[in-house]
Amino acid sequence: MINRLTFDLKATSGDARAGIIHTDHGDIETPIFMPVGTAGTVKAVHQSELRKDIGAQIILGNTYHLYLRPGCDLLRQAGGLHQFNGWDRPLLTDSGGFQVFSLAENRKIKEEGCTFRSHIDGSKHLFTPENVMEIQRIIGADIIMAFDECAPGDSDHRYAKRSMELTHRWLDRCIKRFGETEPLYGHHQALFPIVQGCQYEDLRKISAEYIASKDPEGCAIGGLAVGEPTDVMYRMIEVVNSILPKDRPRYLMGVGTPQNILEAIERGVDMFDCVMPTRNGRNGLLFTAEGTINIKNKKWESCFEPINPMSAAEADRVYTLAYLHHLIRAEEILGLQICSIHNLRFYLWLVGEARRHILAGDFPAWKNGMIQKLGRRL
Amino acid sequence: MINRLTFDLKATSGDARAGIIHTDHGDIETPIFMPVGTAGTVKAVHQSELRKDIGAQIILGNTYHLYLRPGCDLLRQAGGLHQFNGWDRPLLTDSGGFQVFSLAENRKIKEEGCTFRSHIDGSKHLFTPENVMEIQRIIGADIIMAFDECAPGDSDHRYAKRSMELTHRWLDRCIKRFGETEPLYGHHQALFPIVQGCQYEDLRKISAEYIASKDPEGCAIGGLAVGEPTDVMYRMIEVVNSILPKDRPRYLMGVGTPQNILEAIERGVDMFDCVMPTRNGRNGLLFTAEGTINIKNKKWESCFEPINPMSAAEADRVYTLAYLHHLIRAEEILGLQICSIHNLRFYLWLVGEARRHILAGDFPAWKNGMIQKLGRRL
Repeated sequence: MINRLTFDLKATSGDARAGIIHTDHGDIETPIFMPVGTAGTVKAVHQSELRKDIGAQIILGNTYHLYLRPGCDLLRQAGGLHQFNGWDRPLLTDSGGFQVFSLAENRKIKEEGCTFRSHIDGSKHLFTPENVMEIQRIIGADIIMAFDECAPGDSDHRYAKRSMELTHRWLDRCIKRFGETEPLYGHHQALFPIVQGCQYEDLRKISAEYIASKDPEGCAIGGLAVGEPTDVMYRMIEVVNSILPKDRPRYLMGVGTPQNILEAIERGVDMFDCVMPTRNGRNGLLFTAEGTINIKNKKWESCFEPINPMSAAEADRVYTLAYLHHLIRAEEILGLQICSIHNLRFYLWLVGEARRHILAGDFPAWKNGMIQKLGRRL
Repeated sequence: MINRLTFDLKATSGDARAGIIHTDHGDIETPIFMPVGTAGTVKAVHQSELRKDIGAQIILGNTYHLYLRPGCDLLRQAGGLHQFNGWDRPLLTDSGGFQVFSLAENRKIKEEGCTFRSHIDGSKHLFTPENVMEIQRIIGADIIMAFDECAPGDSDHRYAKRSMELTHRWLDRCIKRFGETEPLYGHHQALFPIVQGCQYEDLRKISAEYIASKDPEGCAIGGLAVGEPTDVMYRMIEVVNSILPKDRPRYLMGVGTPQNILEAIERGVDMFDCVMPTRNGRNGLLFTAEGTINIKNKKWESCFEPINPMSAAEADRVYTLAYLHHLIRAEEILGLQICSIHNLRFYLWLVGEARRHILAGDFPAWKNGMIQKLGRRL
C-alpha cells in the first residue's frame, strides 16, 4: 500500500502538463479523461470494453447514487466498489455535494451539513463532511473528494463568498475525519479538496490558496461549467492553477466538451470527467476528430463506412454509420452501447493525443488545429 | 455458392437428432437455438458477443421489421443484412406473417395477401407471397420462410382448415416466385415452408404431407406456443415430425422455454428461435441449469458469487449476482446487456449439451434430469 498518492510531472508545453499519477490500483497517465460510472456502471458499457476498447485508466462513481443504492451496508459487504463492480483499475468518487444540489429534493444547507430527500424514494438523509468521508471510505475509491457546496453559477458575490467559506470549514472537518479513519480494503485513498468561488477571481484566488495550504495529494476545481461563459471558466482556471501546487494533479470537475478539455489542458489541468460523451451519445451525438455528428440525420442513413476504421474500439471498426443511424432511429439498445463506446474512446483518444503532443513539445500548435475542427458539425 | 442447403444427420437418440446444416456462411450444428435479432440487432448484444461469448451460429432477422425500417432500398444498397449489421455467419428471416398478425394494425387478409398498417407510423402496406419472397431476397438471409397465415391458437376447426389451405396456396406462390428470382449477393438462399393447422391433428397431418411433398430444403412448424397446452404442442410436433422428411432440418418457430426446447428436441426438432431469453432477460429473469432466477428478488442482493463461473461468456464470469441485482433494480442498461448475454449463452449451452448427449447416445436420461431442474425457481 502506498502512503501517499504521487504525481510525476514528465513534461510541460507552456502550462500544459503530462504526468503520471501512481495509485495502488495502477498508474494513470495524464492528462486523463475519467468516464462517469454514476451508479457503479458506466451506462451501457461493459467493464471489459472500458479496458480494452476505450482504454479507460480510471472511472468515477457518484457517492450520492451509491449511498442511496446499493447503499453502504452492501458495498461494505462486497468489499468496496472495486469488488462490487469488478473494475480493478483506479476509481474516483465525488463527494455527493453536486448531486445533492442538482438531483435531490427538499435540500437544506446548514453549518452541520445538508439534509435532502432521495430522488428515488423521497427518503430523508443528511450528508455531513464527516459522514461523507465515512461513506467514501466504504466505497473505497482511490481518490475521494471533500464535501463542498456547489453554489449556483449565477450566485452573487455575497452568496458565493459565504458558500466558499462554508466549503472551507467543511474541508477542515473532512480532513480531520479523513485523518481519523483508515482505508478499509488495504489500498490507499487520497482526499482531494475542491476550489470554489463561482466566477469571482478574488474568491477563486482565496479558495485556491486555502486549498494549497492544506498540502493536499491532489486538487480539484469545482463549480465551473455551470452556465458561465467559457472565457470566464478559462480565466478562473488560469487564476486557480497559478496558485495550486505544481507537483500535485489538478482535476477540473464535470468539464466538458472536447474543446473545453483542450483549453483546460493548455491551462494546466490534468484530470477531467463529464457525462457528456455518454449522455449525448445516448441521444445520438457522436464526437469525432473532425467535428460532431448527429447520427439521426438523414445524411448518415446510407453512409456504409465504419464509424472510425482507425479506432482502438472494435465497435468503431465493425459497425457502419448507416447501421448506427438505423439503430438509434429504431431506439435499439445496441445503438446506445455503440455511441457510448465511440464517444468515450474519442475522449480517451483526445487526451492521449494531447499527452503525446505535450511530451513532443508541440501541444499548442496541435491544440489550435484540433480546436478548429472539433467545433464543426458534420 | 452451394446449390442447395444440405443437412447431415450425424446421430439420433430415440427421435432426437444431431446434425450439421451446411450454408454458404458456414455450418450450423444442430440442435441449435437462434437468437432473435428483430430489427437487425439482437437487443443489447454486440455481434462480437454473439460470436465469442454466446456462441451463436445463426441469428434471426424479422422481415416485417426490416422491411419497415431500414427498408428494402437501404438493405439493397448495403448489400443485404449481413453487410448491413456485420454478422458474417448464417442468417434466417421469418416471412413477416407472424408479426403482421401480432403487431400490425388494421390487417386484412385476402387471397392476394395481407394489407396492414405499420406499428411505427401507421403507413399502409401489402404483403403477398410474391413480394415477401422479393423482400427476403433483398434482406439476403441464408434461410428464408414462406409467407403464411398464423391463425389464432384458439381457432375453430373450420377457421383453422381454411387458414391452412390459404397458407398452402400461398406456399405454392412463394415457391413459384422464389424459383423465378435469384439470390442477390452471391450466396445461396433456402426457402423453408411452414406447417400450420393449429391444434388439430388431422390438419397438422395434411399440412405436413403437403409441405413434405414440395421437397423443401428444410421444414418449419408454425402456429404453436400460441396459448395451447404444452402437451397439445408436443403432440402436434410428434404428428408433424412423423411425416416430415428425415433428411431435412426441422425448425419449430418461436418456441420457447428451455423445457419446451428439450421436449421438442426429443421429438425430432433441430432448430429453435424465441425472444424469451432476451425479452425475459430484460425483465431480470435468468435461466440457469438449476432453474430460473428473478434477479430483482431481495435474496440476490448480497450474493457476491459470479453469475456463472463456468460460462463461456465473460459477463457471466466477471459480474456477480449482487451486482446484477443492483443494475436491474437501478434500471441500468448494463443490467439488460448482462441478462441478455447470460440467457442467450444458457440457451446455446443447453442445445449444445443436448447435441453432446445425442451424440453420446444418452440424451433421454440427461434430458429427464434437466427437465426436473429447469422448472425450479431459485
